[in-house]
Parts: sequence; structure tokens; C-alpha cells
Amino acid sequence: MHARTLQKPDGRKLTVYSRLPIEGDLDAPSPSSEPLQANPHLRWHPLRGEWVAYASHRQGRTFLPPPEYNPLGPTRDPAFPTEVPAGRYDIAVFDNRFPTLVTTAHDPPASLVETAPATGVCEVVVFTQDADASLGALPLSQIELLLEVWADRTREIGGLPHIDYVMPFENRGVEVGVTLHHPHGQIYAYPFVPPIPARMLAQQEAFWKEHGRGLLEDLIRKEIEEGARMLYQGDHAVAFVPAWARYPYEAWVAPTRPVATFCDLAPEQRADLARALKTTVLKYDGLWGRKLPYLQVWYQAPTDGEPHPEAHLHAELWPPYRTPDKLKYLAGTELGAGMFAMDVLPEDKARELAAVPVDLSAEEEAR
Amino acid sequence: MHARTLQKPDGRKLTVYSRLPIEGDLDAPSPSSEPLQANPHLRWHPLRGEWVAYASHRQGRTFLPPPEYNPLGPTRDPAFPTEVPAGRYDIAVFDNRFPTLVTTAHDPPASLVETAPATGVCEVVVFTQDADASLGALPLSQIELLLEVWADRTREIGGLPHIDYVMPFENRGVEVGVTLHHPHGQIYAYPFVPPIPARMLAQQEAFWKEHGRGLLEDLIRKEIEEGARMLYQGDHAVAFVPAWARYPYEAWVAPTRPVATFCDLAPEQRADLARALKTTVLKYDGLWGRKLPYLQVWYQAPTDGEPHPEAHLHAELWPPYRTPDKLKYLAGTELGAGMFAMDVLPEDKARELAAVPVDLSAEEEAR
Repeated sequence: MHARTLQKPDGRKLTVYSRLPIEGDLDAPSPSSEPLQANPHLRWHPLRGEWVAYASHRQGRTFLPPPEYNPLGPTRDPAFPTEVPAGRYDIAVFDNRFPTLVTTAHDPPASLVETAPATGVCEVVVFTQDADASLGALPLSQIELLLEVWADRTREIGGLPHIDYVMPFENRGVEVGVTLHHPHGQIYAYPFVPPIPARMLAQQEAFWKEHGRGLLEDLIRKEIEEGARMLYQGDHAVAFVPAWARYPYEAWVAPTRPVATFCDLAPEQRADLARALKTTVLKYDGLWGRKLPYLQVWYQAPTDGEPHPEAHLHAELWPPYRTPDKLKYLAGTELGAGMFAMDVLPEDKARELAAVPVDLSAEEEAR
Repeated sequence: MHARTLQKPDGRKLTVYSRLPIEGDLDAPSPSSEPLQANPHLRWHPLRGEWVAYASHRQGRTFLPPPEYNPLGPTRDPAFPTEVPAGRYDIAVFDNRFPTLVTTAHDPPASLVETAPATGVCEVVVFTQDADASLGALPLSQIELLLEVWADRTREIGGLPHIDYVMPFENRGVEVGVTLHHPHGQIYAYPFVPPIPARMLAQQEAFWKEHGRGLLEDLIRKEIEEGARMLYQGDHAVAFVPAWARYPYEAWVAPTRPVATFCDLAPEQRADLARALKTTVLKYDGLWGRKLPYLQVWYQAPTDGEPHPEAHLHAELWPPYRTPDKLKYLAGTELGAGMFAMDVLPEDKARELAAVPVDLSAEEEAR
């Protein structure tokens, strides 16, 4: 992997990554040259016991580009700079222009609840230069590179002081609020371990202490044994609809053996994890012959300097659909109580996804 | 309050409530006479440490009535029975025909994770016989009656063995997945205290133990003192946009002094709580001149037989809109990490809502 880091005229950082050496000049364009004014803050929600971020400058993120303008595509016309340059590279990462968390946050306003600077990092990860691609359509080598990029970002951002958790994710589809269709994800890096990964790590830690082995490793072994919900099973990675799915077409993608963060993946694990992820997304897209929207969230060990033998890197993918034309809405019981209600069984949905043909062998042979 | 309980031909229970004595015969209609087949089960989500409910019979809840048919309106033509009878009553409550939780759940299937019967109660609460009304348009006396009905349901359902938590809520608007526009809510009663109220009660209990007074009572006192986010302030109840809001137009409605459950409301508290709730919904509906969709969730003390001095009955209302034409989507950081990101300040949104004129004095005088 090759990388080059540049600075945009508004002060934001851009890093481009490539499988091949990056040669020649590269610009670091920005749709705006005004320096970021973002100074978000956190407020403590006393009843839920969690932080809420307030970034009121984000309101201006409304953006109505002309149809030919794609802020995530390479800049073609210097008069209309996008977020990424033209040139030979594969993946680009840059600071979000409308961040919820920034490293320079300071002087939070007083409130009747506790407040704090919203310290952190919000990055955008452009998966490819091809605006019409999708994650599943990318070559395996590109998905492997993406896993390497996530490792590099985890290493760099996680190494900053005050960053305790680095979470890459992809929101895909208008149904989950995404208006830019160019394949991309985001990285949020938090100054604390956020409530959901904290809860998951606590469960994993309790299991680790009791059994001396990983909870997710144990569950993956059982899923493989039972076999009924597997979507992909390779030598080093798996994809499956978990027996405890909260969304009808939920899928988990993970290395079979526990790995704490992206940085700890051996090359053969990374390669198989790329196959598991690609297979899952291609099954999603083949299910109804269209790009299925989803949230894809990657959970890894905190970057808080503590050892986390309980952690097990994995992705959870949550498509919001129940049927081709019915969304699963999160309402009273899900958002109010925290108990998800499913009107289908994971076994049945896994069978549907397993039946979607995906064949990576031609691509494998061509490599 | 007067009540009469009846049984539907499919075995489900119906209770009608009225301010005046209920006279004459009343039917207990049902769109279907087939007995409920529901036998939902729970599975343990090992990483999140929470139950997920599986009710696969619910798939059939798709329902395409002819335009004049409203299953929540009084039955006009016995050939097309709805869920509620014609007759003189104000509010009706019946067992949900597609329940996620049932008292008769039994023999959960084995799985690689722990399973349990999905024991509980799911009820529908029809707020009025008028299909075109909305909660805010109902007379105060009707909203007071609704608070009494919620108390009666809490008393009855909460008194059942194995029911630890009774949660009334209202999902309103197609944006939150509701296709029936007749004003109604639901009640879910759980065999455990669900994760979100459990977390809130733990925070409240810790505060109670440290300070010897209620956390929400303390926060309400501070909100009143600061005043910047108040929407309603009466002698016994308040409505406000909390300083820690997670949704732009989030509002909380509560009695000023702590009350554990609906059953503990004194008449003057109930009357003022009705005013606070009605004022909030009228402000929502006045904001953009249309019925603002929202989730309305009521949190109270568990019905687990333990004392809960830390509990403080209150409603949280979460409209899903950021602006008249922009939804707030829950995506990566909210659903994946559990940290909500706001692009507006609660103070600014409270100012907008406070400016919406609501005058209940004419109605008060007429009583």
C-alpha cells in the first residue's frame, strides 16, 4: 500500500492510497476554501448516561450540486473543485467538511448539564474513483486495500491523544439518509468508547473472564457447526445472518479467529475478510436486483491504550428493508424500550440470501 | 371513569372506557374470528446483552382495507367488523391482533443462543372514535381520561405475574411507519425491564442514592429556573425541550414533582399533565401547519414489585424531522455507536416551538 498526505486550502487533510506507487503531482482540492469554523460540543444526557454531540454549523451541509457535479469524484474542472483530485490512486480519505467531532474543539458552552469539547475526528473514505460502482462490485484487491486503509486510519487516528474509539461505517442508500451515491463510507473517532461498543465489549469481557476464550469466536464456531445461517465460510473469515439478528437481512462479517483491530489482520485473513464482505454485499445486491441499502458498522478494540483480549473485529450490516417494498421502521419498542421486534426468523432470511448466487472464482483465477 | 370489558370472537380482550356510565349492549367485533396463533419467542443477543423478539406470524399483518374501511373506527356495518364497536364510549383498548409479546407464549425453539417465551402484552389504545382527530385536538377531558386509561392498564397489566414493565407509546405518521391515521397508541408490557428504561432507572437510582432526591425532578427545577427551553409551565406539570435533546424538536412532558406511575397521579396533577401534553402536540401541529410525526414514549416505574423512589413518570416525544422537508435519519453514529449527533441547538428549536401560539383558556373556561 502506498499513501500520500496533502492539505486542502481550508486546512483539512487529504490522504490518497494506492496499490501502486503514487507518482506525479496531486492537488488537494476543496469545494470551499474557507477554513472550518466547526467547534462542536458534547452535552451529557443525564438519564441515558451518554453524550450527545451538538454541531450547529452542520446545518449548512445542504448541497444541491448541478447534476454533473459529484463532490466525491475526481476534480475534472478546476473551476468546480470536488473533495478529491484527479490522478492515479485507488482510495481517498479526507476530513469531513461538516464534522460532528474535531480535534480542535474547545470552550464548550455552559449548560445545566455537563458539557465537554466534542473532541474527535470525522473522515470521509472514498472507496473508488468510479462513481457508479458499489462496494460489492469492486475488485477483491480494492476491498483488501480498503481494509488496509481502515487499518492505517485506526493506527493514525487511534494514536492521537484523547481518541479512544475508531469506528468505520458505511451508510448506503437514500433510505438511510444518504444523498451521495458515489461509493464511500465514513470514520468517526470518539474521545470515549461509545455506549454500544462499550456495552458489547463489557459482554465480551465478562465471557472472556469466565471462559478464557472469545465470545464472538465461540458464537462463530457454533454458527459454523449449525450451518443454517452461513453466507460465506472461508479459511479465515465468515459471513452469516446471526441467530440473534435484529434486522431481517442483518449479516455479520468477521475473521474466524479473534483479531482486535484492522491493524492486527494478517494478509491471508485480510484477503478472506475481503471475500466475505464482497460476497455479502453481492448477495444483498442480487437479492432483489438492486443495490440494497444498509448500514455497515465495524467494531474493533478501543484505542485507549488498554489491552482488549475480549475484542473481536467484525462488521454488522443492517439493511432497513423487510420485503422489497416494506421498510422496517424503528419505533416504540426499538427506540423507546431497546427491544427489537422481528416478524421473520433469521433462518428464513439467511436461506434467501444463501440462495443468491455469488461466484468469485473467476476473479480469483484472474489474479 | 367507567369501563366495560368484553371478549372478541377470536378470544382477544376489549375494554371500553368512558367519562359517562356505559349503557346498553356493546359488541366486541373483530376483523377476523380465527383464534390467535401467536407464539412469539425471545432470543438473547449475546454481544448487546439484550433480548430480541421473534413473532413470525406478524408477517401477515399487511392489510389493505377499502378506502372507507377503518379498523380502528366503530363498526358501522356488521359485515365488515372493525376492532371496536359502535356505541357511547370514549376510548377503547384491545389486544393487538399481531402481538410481539403474548401471555400464553410457550415452548421457545432451541437456538445456539438462549431463548425464552416472549411473554407479555401488546395492546392497541384507540384515543377517540373520531378518525380525523389528533391527540392535540382532543378535549382536555379526553386527554385526562387517556391518562386514567394508561393508569388502569398499568394497574391491570402490571399486576400480571411476569410483567415487569408497562410502556405506553404512540407512533404517529407514515415517517415512523404508521399507516393507520385514526388517533391511537400502543402499550407494550415486557417480562423484564427493557434496556433503555433500565439504563435510565440505573442513572436515576445512582443520583437518588447520592443526593436523596430525584434526578429528573432536579433537572426540571433547573429547566424552570433557566426557562430558555420551556414549552409549558403549570402548577403541577411541565413540557420542555431538554438541554440534552437528541432530536431537534424533542420534548419532554412530566409532572413537576416525581410520581412513579400513572396510577400515582393526583387529579390536579393529571389535569395539568393533560394540559402540558396537549400544549406540546398543538405546538408540534402548529409549527408547520400539519400533523408533525413523532414517537411518544411514556416511562414509568417498573411493575416488578420493588420500590422505585428514583422513578419519575414522563413522556419523551421525538419528531423525526430536522426541517419541514428534511428527516433526521438515524445512521452510523446513532445506531452504530449510540452517540446522537445534532446539527441544531435545543435552545433554538425550543424558541421556535415556544413561539407557536397555543391557547387553552377558552376550553378551560368552557369546562
